[in-house]
Amino acid sequence: MDREKIDGLILSSPSNISYLTGLRSRDSYLVISRKENVYITDSRYIEEARKNLKGFAVEKTNNSVFKKIADICRSLRLKCIGFEESHLNFTAYKKIRKELDDNAGLAATSGLVEELRQIKTQGELEKIKKATEITIKAFRFIKDFIVPGAREIEVAAELERFIRYNGASASSFEIIVGSGPNSSFPHHLTSERKLKKDEPVLLDLGVDYSGYKSDLTRVFFSGKMNSLAQKIYKIVLKAQKAALAKIKPGAVISRIDGSARGYIGKEGYGSFFGHGLGHGIGLEVHEEPYINKKENRGLKAGMVFTVEPAVYLPGKFGIRIEDMVLVTKAGMEVLSGALDK
Amino acid sequence: MDREKIDGLILSSPSNISYLTGLRSRDSYLVISRKENVYITDSRYIEEARKNLKGFAVEKTNNSVFKKIADICRSLRLKCIGFEESHLNFTAYKKIRKELDDNAGLAATSGLVEELRQIKTQGELEKIKKATEITIKAFRFIKDFIVPGAREIEVAAELERFIRYNGASASSFEIIVGSGPNSSFPHHLTSERKLKKDEPVLLDLGVDYSGYKSDLTRVFFSGKMNSLAQKIYKIVLKAQKAALAKIKPGAVISRIDGSARGYIGKEGYGSFFGHGLGHGIGLEVHEEPYINKKENRGLKAGMVFTVEPAVYLPGKFGIRIEDMVLVTKAGMEVLSGALDK
Repeated sequence: MDREKIDGLILSSPSNISYLTGLRSRDSYLVISRKENVYITDSRYIEEARKNLKGFAVEKTNNSVFKKIADICRSLRLKCIGFEESHLNFTAYKKIRKELDDNAGLAATSGLVEELRQIKTQGELEKIKKATEITIKAFRFIKDFIVPGAREIEVAAELERFIRYNGASASSFEIIVGSGPNSSFPHHLTSERKLKKDEPVLLDLGVDYSGYKSDLTRVFFSGKMNSLAQKIYKIVLKAQKAALAKIKPGAVISRIDGSARGYIGKEGYGSFFGHGLGHGIGLEVHEEPYINKKENRGLKAGMVFTVEPAVYLPGKFGIRIEDMVLVTKAGMEVLSGALDK
Repeated sequence: MDREKIDGLILSSPSNISYLTGLRSRDSYLVISRKENVYITDSRYIEEARKNLKGFAVEKTNNSVFKKIADICRSLRLKCIGFEESHLNFTAYKKIRKELDDNAGLAATSGLVEELRQIKTQGELEKIKKATEITIKAFRFIKDFIVPGAREIEVAAELERFIRYNGASASSFEIIVGSGPNSSFPHHLTSERKLKKDEPVLLDLGVDYSGYKSDLTRVFFSGKMNSLAQKIYKIVLKAQKAALAKIKPGAVISRIDGSARGYIGKEGYGSFFGHGLGHGIGLEVHEEPYINKKENRGLKAGMVFTVEPAVYLPGKFGIRIEDMVLVTKAGMEVLSGALDK
């Protein structure tokens, strides 16, 4: 707060609020200041908040949540109030500005809590590891369902059931089951398509365990791999290995991305790998640090992110191999290392 | 566009973009103008867009999507460009403003596409009806799982599997299974709690069928209902009946809410029904029109919304009964009328 020259901060990102309160926040706001921290929610969540929130004042909105926020800022005598510019839409900004006194400043801030969230605590790591463990179990379970004739959506159906019986509260995003040519769309929408014999089936699955997420991808084959698929699979695997080898505290992020991308490029498939190499993961599936060619900051111990090189051949198939990695003081640990690839 | 005095509009709401393009849009933007309509996406979705989008130019972003949007506005010679103020965060607004030429105006607009979306076309209705039908089947299927000893999350697991085998692509929100006292939280997070004998189990389920959503709630009993639960159930049911009886084109929305709320109040439970009576539903689970005491517009034929009166007794239990209704020229049709209550 000192660095940003603010005496209060209005938080609107559910994940940032969850991080600071320990409560799974939905449709709620948090005002923090040196005097008091106030959680603001409506009738749907007020009982939950009152029961579970310790160390925070809890206020219920009746009509306008923006008026309530302004009233709280006024009663705390805040003079320069930060807001999260990436998590507040323009309407909300306008309404809060209008409700605040004219002499109260409203300052855009960015990434304050996200920066803290990059370095995971021991408690967070335990939850992430548990989420990863459930996901690995699910990948092993589902192998028997990857057979010709099964529909993509049925594979997803079995996974959705399995993960909940095994401790997850939900999948952390819509499970991707991309069979045959569908695997060439990086974020394919799982469809009614039936799996055919001898084709790749890309499976991208993550779960939510106590608010923390996992995210892993493997490509299965409903029978034999043809020689092109074998070749691409090896390239992607080697690219991932090259990137993993570079991960340690202080390593420059763009170079990690570069080592995988460079290898794929050298093999002649550079233009078929369009997205970044990975993304941080924790309370959100995608969060800081983003692992791509533009990011020149260094890694720090405690960061957790995915490493997911890929080659997508339009109309043919796509291969992506995605693991989750923890940066340790000594180097790194592949959290999903137990899963075959 | 004439009414808003704009010659172009930047769309950022995924649902609004899906409505206008017919494509399920994710992380994408749409610029519409009299000259040309341009869909802007990144490498993850570009193949899908090129394959499925007819009648739109498709542009791929490499670095900044905001620069790309500005470049497109410039090449279309747009002079006053609208943006969706409720669907653009402050950062995105700032970046687009910065990239645009100084003499190009940027004007906040609100609800332009949402207004169109309130009145469903025949094609949309068919999808909503199909989503409702799958949901009704799922409620019938799940009855056998509502038994003492089953965990809330296991009930959700079975539903997640069932709906996908029956044509849904996903649940439209995290399924709520609230047993015993958990049913008193309107948006309870489905937990590992085991169902006990003779307690209410609130089930709130919606599915996604071809992008269109359903949303229904019933309360089951794992055995017998006690007399208080019986009493409250009857009150909520009568309140819903009172509201349904008022629904027809031209009816003032606040009065529909008022007839259910008034009845619950008269029975002495007014302070235990905190949320609005319902919400529009279509491409989003919650959309216009919102059915609450502040909304004084009139209903129109083609609107689809939920009617979900409730009474939540903290620490005891909650009863909510939620159906989906279509306003017809002649009056209304309960789309979920086939489901027992």
